[in-house]
Amino acid sequence: MTLNFAEYKTKLYSAVLADTLDSLGYHKQTLSPGIKSIKPDVVMCGLARVGLYMPIYHDDENTDVYEHEIGLIDSLKENEIAVLCCHGNEKIAPWGELLSTRANYLKSAGCLTDGCVRDTKMVNEIGFPVFAKGTNPVDTKFRGKMMMTDVPGEIANVYVESGDLILGDNDGVVIVPSTIINKVIKKALEKVSSENTVREKLKRGYSLTDVFKKYKIL
Amino acid sequence: MTLNFAEYKTKLYSAVLADTLDSLGYHKQTLSPGIKSIKPDVVMCGLARVGLYMPIYHDDENTDVYEHEIGLIDSLKENEIAVLCCHGNEKIAPWGELLSTRANYLKSAGCLTDGCVRDTKMVNEIGFPVFAKGTNPVDTKFRGKMMMTDVPGEIANVYVESGDLILGDNDGVVIVPSTIINKVIKKALEKVSSENTVREKLKRGYSLTDVFKKYKIL
Amino acid sequence: MTLNFAEYKTKLYSAVLADTLDSLGYHKQTLSPGIKSIKPDVVMCGLARVGLYMPIYHDDENTDVYEHEIGLIDSLKENEIAVLCCHGNEKIAPWGELLSTRANYLKSAGCLTDGCVRDTKMVNEIGFPVFAKGTNPVDTKFRGKMMMTDVPGEIANVYVESGDLILGDNDGVVIVPSTIINKVIKKALEKVSSENTVREKLKRGYSLTDVFKKYKIL
Repeated sequence: MTLNFAEYKTKLYSAVLADTLDSLGYHKQTLSPGIKSIKPDVVMCGLARVGLYMPIYHDDENTDVYEHEIGLIDSLKENEIAVLCCHGNEKIAPWGELLSTRANYLKSAGCLTDGCVRDTKMVNEIGFPVFAKGTNPVDTKFRGKMMMTDVPGEIANVYVESGDLILGDNDGVVIVPSTIINKVIKKALEKVSSENTVREKLKRGYSLTDVFKKYKIL
Repeated sequence: MTLNFAEYKTKLYSAVLADTLDSLGYHKQTLSPGIKSIKPDVVMCGLARVGLYMPIYHDDENTDVYEHEIGLIDSLKENEIAVLCCHGNEKIAPWGELLSTRANYLKSAGCLTDGCVRDTKMVNEIGFPVFAKGTNPVDTKFRGKMMMTDVPGEIANVYVESGDLILGDNDGVVIVPSTIINKVIKKALEKVSSENTVREKLKRGYSLTDVFKKYKIL
Repeated sequence: MTLNFAEYKTKLYSAVLADTLDSLGYHKQTLSPGIKSIKPDVVMCGLARVGLYMPIYHDDENTDVYEHEIGLIDSLKENEIAVLCCHGNEKIAPWGELLSTRANYLKSAGCLTDGCVRDTKMVNEIGFPVFAKGTNPVDTKFRGKMMMTDVPGEIANVYVESGDLILGDNDGVVIVPSTIINKVIKKALEKVSSENTVREKLKRGYSLTDVFKKYKIL
């Protein structure tokens, strides 16, 4: 099955993906709260490309602080999302407007980080999706360096690998392991349809007691 | 005195209620910062209906996870607010769009929780007021269950009982114990009037020193 | 050099100031994330006027809780920013609409606090810039008191003195020590120009690898 990211962005949402993953026994696929889009009402969907950071406290020629970061971002393909795992380090802003400009040119689907982002005004003018822990005006130089790319990582308590599907919206961010993407998408689209039925019943005055007895969803 | 919630929503605000409660010796009636409306500029006012949650880590037929939740929400009356006490557990989102749809039908005044909320986009389309600690796409199933309803609770460090008056706005959320609602409302409406006088003086260039000496409020 | 705050607000931004300070060896000039404007897209720039708070738990005639606060705010000059150091105490809201009304009359450039702010709706109607840790409806009375003014302070992990230059925007807040303001401003304006060149190259499809090799900035 070819992945149709444009369709998922309009038909799916993080809550229905989280419920679907729960129903399949995957209970640890939703990022801990607090990783938010820097612009309201953005839906981001694509495939992960993982980079891992470590904190550093100096800079010099040998450090070559942007080395792996430049490598990862220059290699982004259409619909890929740069996943910058900072172990919750809010003291660095590994993403900003120049990286957004390049990633946007390459048709990347966005950036996801548990660190911070800067240049938010300009990033929003570009319209590039960024989900981050917060904003911070500081560079990574003197503070952190990406050390490894395309290796397993963890972000906001969720395990992530390059190739996993990511969907982020106003509610939060869900990661679907690459091995079960097709199964999850199919089941999630079915659940959307059941929820539509329940919603209509409730609007017409049915009680939660009655609709839950019949449809078993809430 | 019949409570006129529509009037309180336009004439009162959380700060003047907090000051009034302070002046009567009630210093612990304001929720700790961080419980926010999921939509800007919403004012929520109504009477509490309390439900208490506990964390759980499984689901099966015996668990009947939505049992008490369905009971509480189906029983909401006009101007009542579902107060979902989660002990600050941000790992669950006990509120979402289907519960909003039902509560809105029953003319409930909103939901207040120190847990999270999901389906925020759809909840905002309904226009149902929700004040929560954050957003999270996950269901309570496998994660938490409401165990008791209409018993005393605590939310963001404030004691709350069903029947207490709740007012939330951009600044935060204040809880007025049911026994003193009339006294607090009367005094708060008077304070609003004094603040209007002071504001006019300051706009015309009076110093804080002078207006405070005269009016004793700031 | 006369400081031209209106120019800095349009040409500079917190990230370029943070980078410039980094390049001069000043790595601790950016406030820890979480101190935000209460209104989106506000740029605040001016000179610090520092006040230090301590937590208190009572109120009476002797306490004279607003004593130093009234003194500091009534003495604000054009382009000065009230810097209210609360040691991260979110239990108090030392700033609100009446202080905003007075400070606005005196042409103060804003308020910066690691405590909370209240009356946010009215403060935003006045259009007065406030960067704070959060919102909270409670007064300082019974909770905190400004004890010293125009002494050195610390806010969100940055040392600050009256006379330091402050710039806050969507990304965060940077403090420029008074002794190096001219040098930093000059160098930051130059950096803005280099970033414009790099941005244009990236928009035209140059790789990060190539532009970083040539311009050494990212």
